[in-house]
Amino acid sequence: MNSEGFEALLARASAPAQGAHAPAIDLSHHLSDVSRARETSPLKLFQKYFNKPGLIGLAGGLPAPAYFPFTDISSNILVHNSFPSSTSPESTFSWLWKLLGAKEKTTSISVPKFATRPEDINLATALQYGLSSGLPQLNKLVKDFSKKVYQPAYENWTTLLHAGNTDAWNKVVLTLCNPGEGVLVSRWTYPSAMATMKPYDIQPVTVDIDAQGMRADALREVLANWDEAARGMPRPHVLYTVPIGENPTGTTTGLQRKKDIYQICVEFDVIIVCDDPYYVLQEGTYIPKAQREVRASETDEEFIASLEPSYLKIDYQGRVIRLDTFSKTMAPGCRLGWYTCNEMFAERIERAAETSTQAPCGFSQSLVASTLIQWGEPGFMRWLKGLRVQYTLRRDFLVDCFSEEFQLTSAAGSGLWTGCQVYNASPRTRPSSFFNEKMPVAKPLFSFVPPTSGMFVWLKVHLADHPDYETVGVKELESKLFIELAEAGVVMGPGFMFNPTDDWSDVTSGHFRVSFSNGEKEDFKKATTIFGRVLREFMSA
Amino acid sequence: MNSEGFEALLARASAPAQGAHAPAIDLSHHLSDVSRARETSPLKLFQKYFNKPGLIGLAGGLPAPAYFPFTDISSNILVHNSFPSSTSPESTFSWLWKLLGAKEKTTSISVPKFATRPEDINLATALQYGLSSGLPQLNKLVKDFSKKVYQPAYENWTTLLHAGNTDAWNKVVLTLCNPGEGVLVSRWTYPSAMATMKPYDIQPVTVDIDAQGMRADALREVLANWDEAARGMPRPHVLYTVPIGENPTGTTTGLQRKKDIYQICVEFDVIIVCDDPYYVLQEGTYIPKAQREVRASETDEEFIASLEPSYLKIDYQGRVIRLDTFSKTMAPGCRLGWYTCNEMFAERIERAAETSTQAPCGFSQSLVASTLIQWGEPGFMRWLKGLRVQYTLRRDFLVDCFSEEFQLTSAAGSGLWTGCQVYNASPRTRPSSFFNEKMPVAKPLFSFVPPTSGMFVWLKVHLADHPDYETVGVKELESKLFIELAEAGVVMGPGFMFNPTDDWSDVTSGHFRVSFSNGEKEDFKKATTIFGRVLREFMSA
Repeated sequence: MNSEGFEALLARASAPAQGAHAPAIDLSHHLSDVSRARETSPLKLFQKYFNKPGLIGLAGGLPAPAYFPFTDISSNILVHNSFPSSTSPESTFSWLWKLLGAKEKTTSISVPKFATRPEDINLATALQYGLSSGLPQLNKLVKDFSKKVYQPAYENWTTLLHAGNTDAWNKVVLTLCNPGEGVLVSRWTYPSAMATMKPYDIQPVTVDIDAQGMRADALREVLANWDEAARGMPRPHVLYTVPIGENPTGTTTGLQRKKDIYQICVEFDVIIVCDDPYYVLQEGTYIPKAQREVRASETDEEFIASLEPSYLKIDYQGRVIRLDTFSKTMAPGCRLGWYTCNEMFAERIERAAETSTQAPCGFSQSLVASTLIQWGEPGFMRWLKGLRVQYTLRRDFLVDCFSEEFQLTSAAGSGLWTGCQVYNASPRTRPSSFFNEKMPVAKPLFSFVPPTSGMFVWLKVHLADHPDYETVGVKELESKLFIELAEAGVVMGPGFMFNPTDDWSDVTSGHFRVSFSNGEKEDFKKATTIFGRVLREFMSA
Repeated sequence: MNSEGFEALLARASAPAQGAHAPAIDLSHHLSDVSRARETSPLKLFQKYFNKPGLIGLAGGLPAPAYFPFTDISSNILVHNSFPSSTSPESTFSWLWKLLGAKEKTTSISVPKFATRPEDINLATALQYGLSSGLPQLNKLVKDFSKKVYQPAYENWTTLLHAGNTDAWNKVVLTLCNPGEGVLVSRWTYPSAMATMKPYDIQPVTVDIDAQGMRADALREVLANWDEAARGMPRPHVLYTVPIGENPTGTTTGLQRKKDIYQICVEFDVIIVCDDPYYVLQEGTYIPKAQREVRASETDEEFIASLEPSYLKIDYQGRVIRLDTFSKTMAPGCRLGWYTCNEMFAERIERAAETSTQAPCGFSQSLVASTLIQWGEPGFMRWLKGLRVQYTLRRDFLVDCFSEEFQLTSAAGSGLWTGCQVYNASPRTRPSSFFNEKMPVAKPLFSFVPPTSGMFVWLKVHLADHPDYETVGVKELESKLFIELAEAGVVMGPGFMFNPTDDWSDVTSGHFRVSFSNGEKEDFKKATTIFGRVLREFMSA
């Protein structure tokens, strides 16, 4: 053996195996009183006897599967490559109407009541009372996905199915927070998540944001200067974030920002709850129509590498609880998703599920699992790539509509949008036929940053320029504009809904959340035209 | 007009229309702090614009149905008359194996993504975000069922879909109770319901029971003599009951008892939460095999009239919250059921659902609704009649097995089982071949009342006769017997699990809950034989 070989052997023997990580640190002091008080459901004591061969179980109140009326369920599902995986010129025409036409290709899945092979998904099991962690087959599929795509940076992480991110967050709130506590959230954030926690007297503590979402420096300031007496609550130990395509601002938190925030959370011992429904809808930078180029297809590895890493990837202590959902990758009515988090939190959440939602719906679990199995892992990746392209086309089309209705000028951002490409939208300069000359470009009416992820464009309407701004106030003006838009035929999400507090002192603009997730092209065109007309009239009133 | 006709006319004009009821009284003072603090989810503000024709909605974050992979779902379901509706000699042979053979008849249901008629169930709606009250079509079906079968005695009752009774109870607890309060429950009761409320520091307050479940006199005594200081909590204002085939005791509360309890609840202002999963599994009185006669088929009206009335039928004030589930009438994995209660409670519970579970799973809602539509209302009634017969055959067979393994002597009950047919089970008298004479009947080993409803036989094992009773104690002996049974190959539900308190001072027997809901005939036969052998050895140890 030559010396080089010997050294290499030694190096291999002493280095940790590739991908090996340390276990999570002890974070059990974060559990709420309610969570600590949860005992293992007494009925689960029988669990250890359930699989003993030959044993006759007369303990559980399980109805006989013979009485389930459903002898099988089946579904025709779209093939995994139903949507183009690249933004070729052809793909822009494929949006929506192609799908509704004759070209839709499907494949079928079927779940029998009784399967021949025990490892196959069957209704006798899926529709019976079962483990709150979910069908083992589906739990394995999502665990494999989390491992491949999110790559948690510690050893003893696990996954647990849940009944959708809203209920998943509800369970996390009850697992981590006591009444009277606060949760760190972005200055503008998802109202349903706030409505979940506020009735338990768990209040939002806002952290300022910029183009990447929550600001690390602002987070540090809040935590470092926490005044328990002035705030009326202990320093928060839970942070809620939608890191990719935040709802409503559309902002996306990059890796360095995530590292900065994570380190602050290590320093101040904060648990990060990462509600990430838009993770795969990462559309990338908006390129104006004229300069737009075809985006090529990607391998799975290129696709995963092109996505902003999850907080899990830097979570070496196990302090991230990640919420994933099938609501955006399949359908909201699945009411199905999964937690990826450390085993200690997963165990406590599973106990909470046992005495409330139990397992997610068996139809949903078996149909979603069968779809994933039918497509295969590469097929599911291909499906996600297709969705990403669809949302990219939608985002592009909506921003294009704004650029046609308004005079967009690209500018370096300030404040909320520091350092990113801000579009200032002014009334379009139109050739005047009477004077046969161009009108000067007017003052911008609103600004926005084309989102790089998610479903939403967040418009910042310059209401400070409205004649009644001083007398009426920004909140009232925003509501007035919302109503005028609705009466003219367009509903956009009014910004006031996304203010997690009653504080308006730092708000000088109106906001509207515009969703491009649904609707037809002509809707976007018509909506932006109406918006332009109503806004111009409103601002010059 | 003759005077008789005139008086009749006057009487008709002044009397309330047949079936008309008064509205619910104001019960809003029962709401918990958490429930009062719930605001309408801000996103629902848009709801009123959603159905305006021609309006372009860019406010909601709804994914386009074109991206739902499921283009349809379908299922082969058992025909509504798959099980015999009478206990004819033929029907006893039909139990289970007939179903698994070639004779199983099915019909098919199918739900398309897009339906031609807007009133038809479709996946574009069922799999989209929707009303937390559930699909309107399904909500109407269950409301019609509640009206026909439960017949609430006040005007403004309503129904609301939920994700199974366990979560429904969880939401009721959070809607009605503050931490530190107590809930009235039967002395032996369903452990999962207790495990749901205890972590919120809501403790069970037990009320003694007899053969009809909770005793009215015992309830009055608890409420009338409530000592807040001694009990360490205010007088309870919520009562939890499983009135039909109570879990675990199998007891059923008759109409007069219900009226007595209801009036006490009126007097002491208590809300009755009626968890009633076994409602249609009303098997009736057990008749020993030799005397058993054929039970004839029934019309729907006879069937409904034969069922113990629900608490709703006497609820003239709107203080009953009834929980129904499809877990026993279809399958537990549906995770689907409904509340029947007054509008005020329904509204608060719906708000709670919006920020947690949202709507029940769309697959489940659409498949269950399609099944109900396919069968039609008479078909569903026929299905329920068939299930009742199946559970009757199962109950009969299990009790028959006990009567073959033991010497059963029927006796008037005492204590828990006052006034009903108690079977005392002694070791079977066997002819002795050696002495050619019969052994005397030994002392009874256990007693039980054949249940008239539900899934469970509740055995009262006379552990006071065990040699170690005084030294070891009843709880330890019961656990010891449970383990010996499990090691011999049978698991029965040990009584200690169903004690909602740590109080054992009034317990002198061991208990086992034996479920006849699942398993094959030979399992019951084998299990009772093993039970006989192990129990005889155990008691003579």
